[in-house]
Amino acid sequence: MFESAELGHKVTKQVYARQEPKLREALLNAQFDLAQAKKFPVLILIGGVDGAGKGETVNLLSEWMDPRHIQTRAFGDATDEEGQRPRMWRFWRELPPKGKIGIMFGSWYTAPIISRVLGQSDEAGLKGSLEEIVRFEKMLSDEGVLLLKFWFHLSKKQQKTRMRELEKDPHTRWRVTKFDWERFKMYDAFRKVSEHALRETSVATAPWTVVDGSDARYRSLTVGKLLLESMKSRLQKSAYKERRVQAPPLLTDNLGLLRDLDMSQKITKEKYETQLEKWQGRLNLLSREKKYFKKHSLILLFEGSDAAGKGGAIRRITGAIDARHYQVVPVAAPTEEERAQPYLWRFWRQVPRRGRITIFDRSWYGRVLVERVEGFCGVADWMRAYSEINDFEEQMTRGGAIVCKFWLQISAEEQLKRFTLRQKTSFKRFKITDEDWRNRKKWNEYEQAVCDMIDRTSTEIAPWTLVAAEDKYLARIKVLKTIAERMEAAL
Amino acid sequence: MFESAELGHKVTKQVYARQEPKLREALLNAQFDLAQAKKFPVLILIGGVDGAGKGETVNLLSEWMDPRHIQTRAFGDATDEEGQRPRMWRFWRELPPKGKIGIMFGSWYTAPIISRVLGQSDEAGLKGSLEEIVRFEKMLSDEGVLLLKFWFHLSKKQQKTRMRELEKDPHTRWRVTKFDWERFKMYDAFRKVSEHALRETSVATAPWTVVDGSDARYRSLTVGKLLLESMKSRLQKSAYKERRVQAPPLLTDNLGLLRDLDMSQKITKEKYETQLEKWQGRLNLLSREKKYFKKHSLILLFEGSDAAGKGGAIRRITGAIDARHYQVVPVAAPTEEERAQPYLWRFWRQVPRRGRITIFDRSWYGRVLVERVEGFCGVADWMRAYSEINDFEEQMTRGGAIVCKFWLQISAEEQLKRFTLRQKTSFKRFKITDEDWRNRKKWNEYEQAVCDMIDRTSTEIAPWTLVAAEDKYLARIKVLKTIAERMEAAL
Repeated sequence: MFESAELGHKVTKQVYARQEPKLREALLNAQFDLAQAKKFPVLILIGGVDGAGKGETVNLLSEWMDPRHIQTRAFGDATDEEGQRPRMWRFWRELPPKGKIGIMFGSWYTAPIISRVLGQSDEAGLKGSLEEIVRFEKMLSDEGVLLLKFWFHLSKKQQKTRMRELEKDPHTRWRVTKFDWERFKMYDAFRKVSEHALRETSVATAPWTVVDGSDARYRSLTVGKLLLESMKSRLQKSAYKERRVQAPPLLTDNLGLLRDLDMSQKITKEKYETQLEKWQGRLNLLSREKKYFKKHSLILLFEGSDAAGKGGAIRRITGAIDARHYQVVPVAAPTEEERAQPYLWRFWRQVPRRGRITIFDRSWYGRVLVERVEGFCGVADWMRAYSEINDFEEQMTRGGAIVCKFWLQISAEEQLKRFTLRQKTSFKRFKITDEDWRNRKKWNEYEQAVCDMIDRTSTEIAPWTLVAAEDKYLARIKVLKTIAERMEAAL
Repeated sequence: MFESAELGHKVTKQVYARQEPKLREALLNAQFDLAQAKKFPVLILIGGVDGAGKGETVNLLSEWMDPRHIQTRAFGDATDEEGQRPRMWRFWRELPPKGKIGIMFGSWYTAPIISRVLGQSDEAGLKGSLEEIVRFEKMLSDEGVLLLKFWFHLSKKQQKTRMRELEKDPHTRWRVTKFDWERFKMYDAFRKVSEHALRETSVATAPWTVVDGSDARYRSLTVGKLLLESMKSRLQKSAYKERRVQAPPLLTDNLGLLRDLDMSQKITKEKYETQLEKWQGRLNLLSREKKYFKKHSLILLFEGSDAAGKGGAIRRITGAIDARHYQVVPVAAPTEEERAQPYLWRFWRQVPRRGRITIFDRSWYGRVLVERVEGFCGVADWMRAYSEINDFEEQMTRGGAIVCKFWLQISAEEQLKRFTLRQKTSFKRFKITDEDWRNRKKWNEYEQAVCDMIDRTSTEIAPWTLVAAEDKYLARIKVLKTIAERMEAAL
């Protein structure tokens, strides 16, 4: 992939002087349109060889365009808060919102490439990381992010010359350190691994552009023009077009997942109280287990029919653990900042660090439940969400999280009884809204969506626990017991 | 302050059973109104003696009300990212937005009280911290936050009994640790210091309520009722009333601050280039000085007349430093999440950690410039902003930041020339808007606002640097030189 970039492209002073002002103006205009439309963000990844003009290009882009709408982020060592979360967390927190240009200097490619070069990972490890990246970038692209990936290249000889030049000049001498020369020794390995990485991740929706870094004028014009063309062509596209994807045929044979739940089980109040004490005590002990929480975090999420008792179950958990360790995240409509990001962004920002517990009252599954049923997103969007969510949970799990997912199910009759009761009990009245009654009318659609969700997202690492919640006592005990057992298994 | 709380208040089961449902209902209604109105946040601080029911009360409040609109935060040890920023940063990042109830379990009182008890700070240190807290809470209250402070109290005898009780019961035994008994030995010192702290910080806008923690029913009803009454009375108040504060008489004798600037100085392009190289080089060396950046961060802020060359000056700084270390924050209109918080919140969230540089293109001074001149906030609001800003900068400085503030000034004639030029140069056209022309008509009002700002916020720790920017070259050199010298002085 680097052959063309070693041809020694050059742009003369004259050509540059003629083209630069026009390019600059066009970039500014495109950037202005981008900021006005606020329809999508632009994300530019900058990678490649040291001395090939990465930093210079980043500075130039900031100079050419309006810096108020560019956010440059450089990724060095992870902070504590970053290191204690899944690997991708630090990148998610720095994604540019719609209307802005984000430049990432170093990215999710850095760690996989470097660790392969240093022999810290093997071929299979690298392959796994790259596959993950391809899926992640596809998701970004499906979510509307305009992703541009630039790789700045120099041949071995060019890099050596460049470093010598920098060293000779007293004003730039500081830019070349011993560490850079150490790294230079690994040029061949670095070249081989990065070529492989680029090839594997150069897909239609997010191709790499390898830029010959030897001539400043050439590389500046190349990056600028490509950025311009990409922005312009994207801005001209009419509003987001739903790809024509048919809804999958309803596999009514999976409805048994919910319908076969035994809703008749009950326990007595006395038994409930003994069991509650037992499992709350167990959960409490586990939540104070330092050995466990040094390596792990706990993510609990609750979905369920309206009035199925999510809140009650959550309070039985929080009642057993120290308020310093948990956080309940009630999921309501996204804020302005959240709407300007891919839909998983608002959940990523709540991912707990090690030693902490986050309880989601409703969750990212809204995408394949309410958003599917109510048509808030297109068919293609909720269909791809299953695998995106599986990827998300896999990343959390790999980052040390135990993910427990609960679906609380009640029958339509029981729901009606609870709705009516809520309306009668004045201090519960806030719990019942017109929307609940509207949702109830779509019982069958929701049932199908739930069964599809369980079918497609109940994984070995993050299985769904279906809870027959007709009897609240039973449901709460099952929830507490499940959490305690998952934690014990991880110890 | 604890006498009344040791009287042994009790509420019988019967009274509680009668009052609790009503209180619950009223609290829910008030909370619902709060969430609907989104006019102000409620912030509840929970402090006091261990075993006095702090945790139980927090859980109860979450049970009584709708947990979707409550955010509970407990503050243990600071994380890396918190520890590397000013002390108050971690509290700012957890402030509840308008319409929500935030409960802080542990707060800005914890550290000052504990370190005094342990003898790590002296009387004067405690006094300083408490005065700072009073100012901070006054600001919160002025910004509309409904602040409630509860202190849960037990007499020494009661605490001992309580801990013994907890220890006897096998289900609660875990709640009492060796550490708790160690702390119990310091009961008297803790009581003395906290009584002092409470007295000093019990001011009209944010009084403490000391709650007798010995009887669960009593303390629950007490907290619930007080919360209810405070929310109700605040909700009934008609929209934010501007306190009648007169604008201060215009002290036209401070206009000399700007008018006396020598705008005629110039340097040649050749000299500029030599100087630029020199100061950029110096800045670069300093920005890579590990000794410095282990203890410090750098905050640069730019204000100035429109077209005074802020962007150009900023680019000369960024051109000299590694993109991995800085971040430019262009200050535009606040987002929805930012509007739901005190005005300084959006700047606190950008405060750099040690080793990092943040450059603000416009800043918190908007409060006393554009917001004052355009009447976006009341007279009382911008008048109090001077001292709030001084407090803010003092906290940053104490947290290790070097704060450099630049005002770039040009003459009205020069501005007209630049505006006209910008309109002619097509790629600079985006830089000039109708608003710029409107602002220009208010030249005199802005001039007064700027002079007042400099008068009131140029402090020893965070002085203003006035830059005669008629000559861009000269202005850029002065900026670079100032930063380098401030950094050198701190080394």
